[in-house]
Amino acid sequence: MRFFIFYLSFFFLNFKILLSGDLPGWLERVRIFWQEKSKLIIEEYQEFLSIPNVATDEENIGRNARWLVRAFDKREVETRLLHIAGAPPAVYGEIKGSEAKLTLAFYAHYDGQPVDVAQWASDPWKPILFDKPRELGGQPLRIDQYDYSLYPEARLYARSASDDKAPIMAMLAALDALKASGIKPAVNLKFLFEGEEEMGSPHLPSLIKANQDLLKADLWILCDGPVHQSRRPIVYFGARGIVGLEITVYGPIRPLHSGHYGHWAPNPAALLANLLASLRDPDGNILIEGFYRDVRPLTGEEKRIIAEAPAIDEDLKKELKIAWSEGFGSIYEKIMLPALNIRGLSSGQVGQAAQNAIPTKAQASLDFRLVPDQRPERVKALVEAHLKKLGFHLVYAEPDEATRLKFPRIIRLEWEEGYPPARLPLNDPLAKAMIITLEKVVGDKLIILPLVGGSIPLYLFSEILHTPALILPIVNHDNNQHGPNENLRLKNLWDGLEIFACLFSQFNDSAVKKRSQ
Amino acid sequence: MRFFIFYLSFFFLNFKILLSGDLPGWLERVRIFWQEKSKLIIEEYQEFLSIPNVATDEENIGRNARWLVRAFDKREVETRLLHIAGAPPAVYGEIKGSEAKLTLAFYAHYDGQPVDVAQWASDPWKPILFDKPRELGGQPLRIDQYDYSLYPEARLYARSASDDKAPIMAMLAALDALKASGIKPAVNLKFLFEGEEEMGSPHLPSLIKANQDLLKADLWILCDGPVHQSRRPIVYFGARGIVGLEITVYGPIRPLHSGHYGHWAPNPAALLANLLASLRDPDGNILIEGFYRDVRPLTGEEKRIIAEAPAIDEDLKKELKIAWSEGFGSIYEKIMLPALNIRGLSSGQVGQAAQNAIPTKAQASLDFRLVPDQRPERVKALVEAHLKKLGFHLVYAEPDEATRLKFPRIIRLEWEEGYPPARLPLNDPLAKAMIITLEKVVGDKLIILPLVGGSIPLYLFSEILHTPALILPIVNHDNNQHGPNENLRLKNLWDGLEIFACLFSQFNDSAVKKRSQ
Repeated sequence: MRFFIFYLSFFFLNFKILLSGDLPGWLERVRIFWQEKSKLIIEEYQEFLSIPNVATDEENIGRNARWLVRAFDKREVETRLLHIAGAPPAVYGEIKGSEAKLTLAFYAHYDGQPVDVAQWASDPWKPILFDKPRELGGQPLRIDQYDYSLYPEARLYARSASDDKAPIMAMLAALDALKASGIKPAVNLKFLFEGEEEMGSPHLPSLIKANQDLLKADLWILCDGPVHQSRRPIVYFGARGIVGLEITVYGPIRPLHSGHYGHWAPNPAALLANLLASLRDPDGNILIEGFYRDVRPLTGEEKRIIAEAPAIDEDLKKELKIAWSEGFGSIYEKIMLPALNIRGLSSGQVGQAAQNAIPTKAQASLDFRLVPDQRPERVKALVEAHLKKLGFHLVYAEPDEATRLKFPRIIRLEWEEGYPPARLPLNDPLAKAMIITLEKVVGDKLIILPLVGGSIPLYLFSEILHTPALILPIVNHDNNQHGPNENLRLKNLWDGLEIFACLFSQFNDSAVKKRSQ
Repeated sequence: MRFFIFYLSFFFLNFKILLSGDLPGWLERVRIFWQEKSKLIIEEYQEFLSIPNVATDEENIGRNARWLVRAFDKREVETRLLHIAGAPPAVYGEIKGSEAKLTLAFYAHYDGQPVDVAQWASDPWKPILFDKPRELGGQPLRIDQYDYSLYPEARLYARSASDDKAPIMAMLAALDALKASGIKPAVNLKFLFEGEEEMGSPHLPSLIKANQDLLKADLWILCDGPVHQSRRPIVYFGARGIVGLEITVYGPIRPLHSGHYGHWAPNPAALLANLLASLRDPDGNILIEGFYRDVRPLTGEEKRIIAEAPAIDEDLKKELKIAWSEGFGSIYEKIMLPALNIRGLSSGQVGQAAQNAIPTKAQASLDFRLVPDQRPERVKALVEAHLKKLGFHLVYAEPDEATRLKFPRIIRLEWEEGYPPARLPLNDPLAKAMIITLEKVVGDKLIILPLVGGSIPLYLFSEILHTPALILPIVNHDNNQHGPNENLRLKNLWDGLEIFACLFSQFNDSAVKKRSQ
């Protein structure tokens, strides 16, 4: 309900600006453009969404990349494909601003999550427009309803309609709107559209390393993920890092009758439970010695913007059917801290399949979310020191017989490589200039948070390219991202279009100088 | 190796007795009988083993019961089927000893575990004899090798060859041996052969309650399970009880992105790990308040016989590839205590399937092994009090939305009914008389233990029939019981035959009187 009120206020605010004639000239022209061309924009987007885009589908991924090259060509964006062996091509584009010294660079990805077609209400690669969400009784928009701008709550259903083709389409349409309005970009623009993000971007580090000169910019803006649940726009100054860990604790070599051997033969599930309890308490406090040592404290300014973000905890609890949250603090405060999530447990059998046996092994799957200035390699060392202190002998492969007979408590560790977090200071001059620019189109509705809870490899830009980087999402949060019936709320596309038009045309060399004084 | 030496000494001991002519007359006649008739005995047994005997296979289970009725008829045992609605018939048999006042009663079961035929080296219901175990290079015994008594290490492969048709066949052959030797039973004998033990004997309590007069006896002898790993004969004076418990801890109603919600939304796997760690430590000490309060201490005599049992811990550790056992004490000492086994854990996913999500629930499956004087209902109360003290709200079905929104920590408990342990005092006069009688055939090799680690509903006899009850196994421990390629070592059948012949003919009214003075 609260979200709905937020939405309404934001919705009417925009209309009020439009109706009151208070709009700056450039925005008025951009808005008239998309209101007049909404059908054409959606038709072009539907064409893009019709190309299946699972990263492993080599042929179709190539079709997506070539579609993007053609889309850039049409808009006179200098473009090329960046190739890395074993990876889908990345699409690069560039526009030189006249005499501009600053370069803004934008990242998005054109691949999407695999689909389980049976779970979808319609073909994931046959985009279809509904006047409102299906679950709220939405009906298909009729062909003769050519002015889609009149249906801000309409939903476009297709894989990647939100994640992450939406920002790409919004950028392309923003370029059209500016061109039609006779407005030239005020800075140099670069675009990098990746094709394997949903596989974890395994080749992105080497792609960036191999193209450092090409990808040189003053500020990288990563366009992925949804806006705030209140539908207000949001900018994240950083993202948590991540490292995953698979743990296996070993018991007897074969399942043993729990009556004949129970409490004599070691129970690996009991060992695992005790181990996990030693890592974190039920309130989520991580008990690993030194784990919080590298956590960089929040500045007063960071604390202030967190406190200003709209409270969502109570609504979330109702939605998720939980009566509590772990420990103390709001969800925003929690996300500023590292996390240890148990994503899975497995040992023996439960329920109807349970047998009166001591299992041979017990497994847990963990993911650690890291905040500045934690590093995956440092976290690995702390965890391993903790396990050794508990008396575990660490192995990195299935233990052999000699190992089993020598060491009482054996644990196998399978670490994911992981990557570090990144967080830009709030007073970074480029970031500040970008915020000021953004406010020209979103007013005082912008929410700023120091970190997004999820992990995004922002560090590639800050550590390899030594460039400040931010996250700017545009799509709706209720978009069924990754799941069946993914959709985009059209209003988010139009808002995104205006946001990109604003950044492309209003961000300029002097904006930065002015703010850094 | 140690077991092998034990076996050899026992094997030669028997032969020495035979060759030296030291045998009592009754035993000499019984032994000559089975040595001469070994082929006929095995052929009759093969016929019995050829009838499939899974409890749910109504038709074949009936064939087994009728085969037993005919086998009793042939031996002039008064017999009848005991029917309970929904259960396979139990086969009852009775022989009145001339003027005997005492009654010995024997329990065994004729049903067997379900089979996975693909896992078997030969058809589980086409019994086949090998000269030694298949895994030691055994070869099928040739038809012309008609004197099976010359192959004590031969193995008979078939479902239930050991578990639990072997004691039944040994009893039938013992009756034959006594009859052929002109020896009459010295006491009244009763037999109860059940047909659904491998399903957990769900109807045995009501069957016993409905037939209390018929099943009246002075001592019940339960013939199930294997002899000691050293191949020495064993008698258990009791069995542990059992109660199983399925636990489900609840988290958010849908899986949540661990980055966006981790350490804010409660993680049910972390709650479960902490809960389990609070129930028992890695050394197997149960931390539930009052859990050990009802444990009846062992007497000095019980401690003495445990200390006398052959040490097997080091051999077992090598076999099971473990470098330690939980806490302190030998496996025999451990089995005298209650146990809390974690038989399964499940939450989210592990390994390749792991996702960066907070699971919606976490499950554990537990079994408690109880020792005298613990009771399932009392253990349930202690566990529930412990969980409440941890702050859990207990439910017994899937929690509804209102419950989820009201209580922070919700746990669902699914208790199995369970049953109590039973342990006969070592100085029980009937039991003492039986041991003395047994020693006439097994000499000083008998191992006595106060409890078997597994759970057997001995309490039905001690609590419903108010009759002392013991467990007397006869089959080899390396018999692949419950698994594929179940087998019986022939020597165990002959030993069993002599043991039953001894109990049937040598146990008498005066034996008890003499010992109870």
